[in-house]
Amino acid sequence: MAFTSGRHFLQIPGPTNTPDRVLRALSRPTIDHRSPEFAQFSLEVLEGLKRIFQTSAPVIVYPSSGTGALEAALVNTLSPGDRILMVETGHFATLWRNLAVELGLEVDFLPGDWRHGVDATIIGKKLTEDEKHAIRAVAVVHNETSTGATSRVHEIRKAIDRAGHPALLMVDTISSLASIDYRHDEWGVDVAVGCSQKGLMLPPGLGLNAVSEKARQASKSARLTKSYWAWEPILAGNKAGFFPYTPPTNLLYGLREAIRMLEEEGLQNVFARHDRLAEATRRAVRAWGLEILCADPEEFSSSLTAVLMPEGYDADDLRGVILTNFNMSLGTGLGKVKGKVFRIGHLGDFNDLMLAGTLSGVEMGLALAGIPFSKGGVAEALDYLEFTRKGKVSR
Amino acid sequence: MAFTSGRHFLQIPGPTNTPDRVLRALSRPTIDHRSPEFAQFSLEVLEGLKRIFQTSAPVIVYPSSGTGALEAALVNTLSPGDRILMVETGHFATLWRNLAVELGLEVDFLPGDWRHGVDATIIGKKLTEDEKHAIRAVAVVHNETSTGATSRVHEIRKAIDRAGHPALLMVDTISSLASIDYRHDEWGVDVAVGCSQKGLMLPPGLGLNAVSEKARQASKSARLTKSYWAWEPILAGNKAGFFPYTPPTNLLYGLREAIRMLEEEGLQNVFARHDRLAEATRRAVRAWGLEILCADPEEFSSSLTAVLMPEGYDADDLRGVILTNFNMSLGTGLGKVKGKVFRIGHLGDFNDLMLAGTLSGVEMGLALAGIPFSKGGVAEALDYLEFTRKGKVSR
Amino acid sequence: MAFTSGRHFLQIPGPTNTPDRVLRALSRPTIDHRSPEFAQFSLEVLEGLKRIFQTSAPVIVYPSSGTGALEAALVNTLSPGDRILMVETGHFATLWRNLAVELGLEVDFLPGDWRHGVDATIIGKKLTEDEKHAIRAVAVVHNETSTGATSRVHEIRKAIDRAGHPALLMVDTISSLASIDYRHDEWGVDVAVGCSQKGLMLPPGLGLNAVSEKARQASKSARLTKSYWAWEPILAGNKAGFFPYTPPTNLLYGLREAIRMLEEEGLQNVFARHDRLAEATRRAVRAWGLEILCADPEEFSSSLTAVLMPEGYDADDLRGVILTNFNMSLGTGLGKVKGKVFRIGHLGDFNDLMLAGTLSGVEMGLALAGIPFSKGGVAEALDYLEFTRKGKVSR
Amino acid sequence: MAFTSGRHFLQIPGPTNTPDRVLRALSRPTIDHRSPEFAQFSLEVLEGLKRIFQTSAPVIVYPSSGTGALEAALVNTLSPGDRILMVETGHFATLWRNLAVELGLEVDFLPGDWRHGVDATIIGKKLTEDEKHAIRAVAVVHNETSTGATSRVHEIRKAIDRAGHPALLMVDTISSLASIDYRHDEWGVDVAVGCSQKGLMLPPGLGLNAVSEKARQASKSARLTKSYWAWEPILAGNKAGFFPYTPPTNLLYGLREAIRMLEEEGLQNVFARHDRLAEATRRAVRAWGLEILCADPEEFSSSLTAVLMPEGYDADDLRGVILTNFNMSLGTGLGKVKGKVFRIGHLGDFNDLMLAGTLSGVEMGLALAGIPFSKGGVAEALDYLEFTRKGKVSR
Repeated sequence: MAFTSGRHFLQIPGPTNTPDRVLRALSRPTIDHRSPEFAQFSLEVLEGLKRIFQTSAPVIVYPSSGTGALEAALVNTLSPGDRILMVETGHFATLWRNLAVELGLEVDFLPGDWRHGVDATIIGKKLTEDEKHAIRAVAVVHNETSTGATSRVHEIRKAIDRAGHPALLMVDTISSLASIDYRHDEWGVDVAVGCSQKGLMLPPGLGLNAVSEKARQASKSARLTKSYWAWEPILAGNKAGFFPYTPPTNLLYGLREAIRMLEEEGLQNVFARHDRLAEATRRAVRAWGLEILCADPEEFSSSLTAVLMPEGYDADDLRGVILTNFNMSLGTGLGKVKGKVFRIGHLGDFNDLMLAGTLSGVEMGLALAGIPFSKGGVAEALDYLEFTRKGKVSR
Repeated sequence: MAFTSGRHFLQIPGPTNTPDRVLRALSRPTIDHRSPEFAQFSLEVLEGLKRIFQTSAPVIVYPSSGTGALEAALVNTLSPGDRILMVETGHFATLWRNLAVELGLEVDFLPGDWRHGVDATIIGKKLTEDEKHAIRAVAVVHNETSTGATSRVHEIRKAIDRAGHPALLMVDTISSLASIDYRHDEWGVDVAVGCSQKGLMLPPGLGLNAVSEKARQASKSARLTKSYWAWEPILAGNKAGFFPYTPPTNLLYGLREAIRMLEEEGLQNVFARHDRLAEATRRAVRAWGLEILCADPEEFSSSLTAVLMPEGYDADDLRGVILTNFNMSLGTGLGKVKGKVFRIGHLGDFNDLMLAGTLSGVEMGLALAGIPFSKGGVAEALDYLEFTRKGKVSR
Repeated sequence: MAFTSGRHFLQIPGPTNTPDRVLRALSRPTIDHRSPEFAQFSLEVLEGLKRIFQTSAPVIVYPSSGTGALEAALVNTLSPGDRILMVETGHFATLWRNLAVELGLEVDFLPGDWRHGVDATIIGKKLTEDEKHAIRAVAVVHNETSTGATSRVHEIRKAIDRAGHPALLMVDTISSLASIDYRHDEWGVDVAVGCSQKGLMLPPGLGLNAVSEKARQASKSARLTKSYWAWEPILAGNKAGFFPYTPPTNLLYGLREAIRMLEEEGLQNVFARHDRLAEATRRAVRAWGLEILCADPEEFSSSLTAVLMPEGYDADDLRGVILTNFNMSLGTGLGKVKGKVFRIGHLGDFNDLMLAGTLSGVEMGLALAGIPFSKGGVAEALDYLEFTRKGKVSR
Repeated sequence: MAFTSGRHFLQIPGPTNTPDRVLRALSRPTIDHRSPEFAQFSLEVLEGLKRIFQTSAPVIVYPSSGTGALEAALVNTLSPGDRILMVETGHFATLWRNLAVELGLEVDFLPGDWRHGVDATIIGKKLTEDEKHAIRAVAVVHNETSTGATSRVHEIRKAIDRAGHPALLMVDTISSLASIDYRHDEWGVDVAVGCSQKGLMLPPGLGLNAVSEKARQASKSARLTKSYWAWEPILAGNKAGFFPYTPPTNLLYGLREAIRMLEEEGLQNVFARHDRLAEATRRAVRAWGLEILCADPEEFSSSLTAVLMPEGYDADDLRGVILTNFNMSLGTGLGKVKGKVFRIGHLGDFNDLMLAGTLSGVEMGLALAGIPFSKGGVAEALDYLEFTRKGKVSR
């Protein structure tokens, strides 16, 4: 690799820019995972995670990717042949569907156009039709990382309740957790799936499951094979601060620091910051004359924005130009939007000037790559950022 | 926790003392796992891992604990109801057996006294008797972390060959890899299981599978459920330096540094260092008048030594005294030897004076805890360490 | 302090944004400064420093601030009552003058308006008039950090030569070294003064003197009191890689890494990068309708730009608004331009998108603070940055 | 350098083993030294330093070596030709004398044998004889790092008081501060000199002066040249948390962490720990049949022990053998005891097992190097360490 001066802009929608406080925490020497010191430490982390998920239910931490935690949600609660209702919001919803199929589940996969979130009305309809309650679970993606559409989980909850249906509600919060308001208890979610490298500002390596009492009950009769992913041995060990297998201590060090940072800022402030930076991004995109992939303004994601390329231009060429010239990584289009969109991650440890740098890199990259567009996106974004600071000026 | 000055002695048999070079490597900022820079980096790591396993076959890296990698070895190669021959060398062999049972395998579990390694003769006998080749795999632990007995894998290989049996050979190298000579190709092992936090000197969080061509062939017809653990999608991605799910980048940074350190020292020198420090440890134990759990000198482990307590004394009490007074963690007795043994880890980033400190802590702890023993173990160890340095004196 | 998300923009003209490679290097454990390992290491660093100063003469490293190194230059070469010719280019030139006076030197201080560099013609005239060679040294600031004016040192050299005057030439390179082309040998400088926290991208704590043979000769008869600053004991120790007093090992670790980074990029590329980012900054300033303090385009600094506030507006109020709202530090006006200018540092570990973020912060801050100005500076800068990337597009 | 596994034992009497907490603190990004955040931070550090010196007087921090701080003590308080009473306790006292001479002071240097601390009686006698109060200062080394003899500063204070003499009392606390009880106010010391790389557990790079009101008064009329070292501009800036020149921010980060560690342990516990580890060391030395350089048991140093070699054996040969074979650095003999002694540093971030490793390295090294000695020193030390833990056993 050629030497590049200055800081890399890691503007993919995860892994996100790791803050130096977290990086330093990661580099603490590993300790004995069976020591009293470890127990005290891990109990602190596990309690903190509950606050991040806004739940009083336990949160399970796996040494795994987010994919692993998606698998864990299914194998702990379901049995071979069980029916599960899923929605094609995009690439990651599709991967989760494929995983369910691989595990031997019967999936009702509601088709989607990759430009919208979940339609709660259809969920309600499907459940109402399911008079025998054959559907054991509804599994949706809160924030679809491949498209930048955020589903309204509380409406899905209401639809399930209105249908009087006992199905479990499972939610992939991988790219929403600690970036977009997610309320595990209030929304009555049974299993939430998260991971470390997005809003939690950590390197990859931790998968998370927040687990309701109803989900734990379901796990008792669930018959999909589970060993590594089994909740109960972990929950049993966690009571005293221990784990049934060697926990990923150093990533947990980082997690403790990340939780501290989120709470120093205040979780609501974190969400508001993401909302504001996302809106600034969208204003830039519109000023460029480009189209946002997510078609419904009520579903715009606060953690990333997927941008459609003009017909005939390849998004990955643009990404290459930007990486080479401006030392910035943007997210590639995944699955069926490969080449058609690029994604701007604006989540995690991020602020106004980092966003200004990011949008500047996109704007200059569009010009360098010869994409038809209008300049002025950065200026629009700055106007918005400035305007929304107005009330806060302290002189 | 009360403040304790100076460095903690982490003398459990893993996680081991993380060297500061590795800790610094861990704290590099995370990069885009789909970038050219990442690909180049991960190919370097994957190549390096082959050299550590002494194989030309591919090595798979999971974001997982070692347990996860043990599961991966089974689910990739076997089908429900398959017979597998395992040997009760200790706690971890037993856990692996339990895991196999949970996965729906038929396990022939050869009983053991937790003081010996695997008897290759019995393996040979069992396989010879198995005329129909119902046994699909032989799975053994190279170095049993709970007892400190190292099995002679090459003899097991020979026994299988003599029996002309096609069973796969799977070996748990969790606490031997990069500490005790392990030769994947020469010994014809099909799946080797490793992890990050032992001889590789990393924090926990990485599981490893080294996979022979024969194992890959077997995986094509294996029908145990596998998704997260499936080798082929990973191997497909790894060809270009990528992964099917977000890889644990920062632990891989540490792994690259650890491989560099092992190769700067030279793998054979690493093994010789472990052998020598282990022998010094055993001399101390004998001088104390205590018994080494491993009953066969040909099977003494170079990575840890499990020590039997005199009748009526609890090992965990002793460990508590040592932790409180001397800021050193020793390994607890696991499973059926709980309370009866403590384990001294002498693997990883370790040297003469660290061992001297370690043994001093044990010797003083034995005295403080009122255990009947003879002083002089440290002195014996020092004599041996000094004697074996003789040829190397440079004045 | 309120919590602030994301990276701080440290855009003062030093200390500069410390790259994480340097920060990690700083955190290596300290070693014995009298060991063979240390000697090898420090010789590597001292050799590297010569290349940075573009000299074959030795470079001396002090545990000190830059101020200390300015003092060292004088006390090693001069005697009480010696005459020295200095030029009022700004605040730091004035401080150096004051220091010379404190040390008992006779200073000819050529007045300046703080908007220009050194006028070589006047230097030549003064020296020509000094027929008896009473002037022992000419001491100038290469890049005046308080004003952003860079003097043409090679012209000063020529003026001295034309006058046939034997005075020593001393140059403060504190904010030019490793950012703006500085050629110690080619320009015949006798003592160059540098420090760690500017172009060298380190934290503060190291002062530097590059020393010509002529300067060393002068030091033999110099009678100003010197002990800590005395060159000869240091040079004597340095020959073997040692120091007469305990050297600042960890800052030297960082220095080694910084030198590696500068040479990976290539020193000429480093200078070109600074030139380009500086020009982009000035285009933004002009588009805002603000005035650059430095009045002569041939003397524009590539490491910082000082910007004049419109009459009646306080620069430090603006800086406060920007710090509070955008988590960015800008340089204050020093000495007689206090409140009248702010300074944008664009040196060190820096790139296009960091500059875009920086200028965005200034532009939004100007608006928030109610300063009369025209928007569009960022857009101008981006146009220039994009235009100058054109030739390099790789698709 | 050949690769060496495991942790280096840095057992010179400074720099000491840097704890990883301090190393991580050092690697925080540098901030603006003129920002409100910096001010708050530096005031915290400066207050903390007072507690370490046990004083309510201000402490000055220089970016410098300890040598620099020794110079600062003199130049701030004295004038050319002033008389100063110093005592030849060893190499560092001699260096300080030489420095005083270089600065143009008249030094009364009381001769010493390098095996004792300061004799307060002679000080008293000298001062009593000095009826005209020509002596302006008494300057002594609290803990002579070259010999391991600790002077009783409070007795010197009493001697000065009994003589009714107005001389300033200056004390070099370089290797005692934060290791051996030092009470600035209670003992009426006027200037104490310290540095970062000993008991403060930091890398080198900070020099310290704790300054009494009387010393500040003296500084007003003192006429030695001072600029970099001048107290008053620093004290003026420090009031608001700032510095007259760029402060060494990252070393100050480390200092804050070090102060926190010392106070978590408790300063009195820190001293008691050093006393105990020092006594264990001396018991080992005696058991080896070697002689401790310090001849007076009441003056034994708690931070280091200098050991005399048997006639005809070179200490540096032994140190080389130990470094090569056991990856441990010991202190060399300095000045007139070069080759005749080696020094064991047992200060800073240090504990029982690190000492056990250290003494084991010496004992094995003595054997390998063929030095006539008796084994058993380690065993003696362990007996003592164990015995003194007795009361603390928690089971």
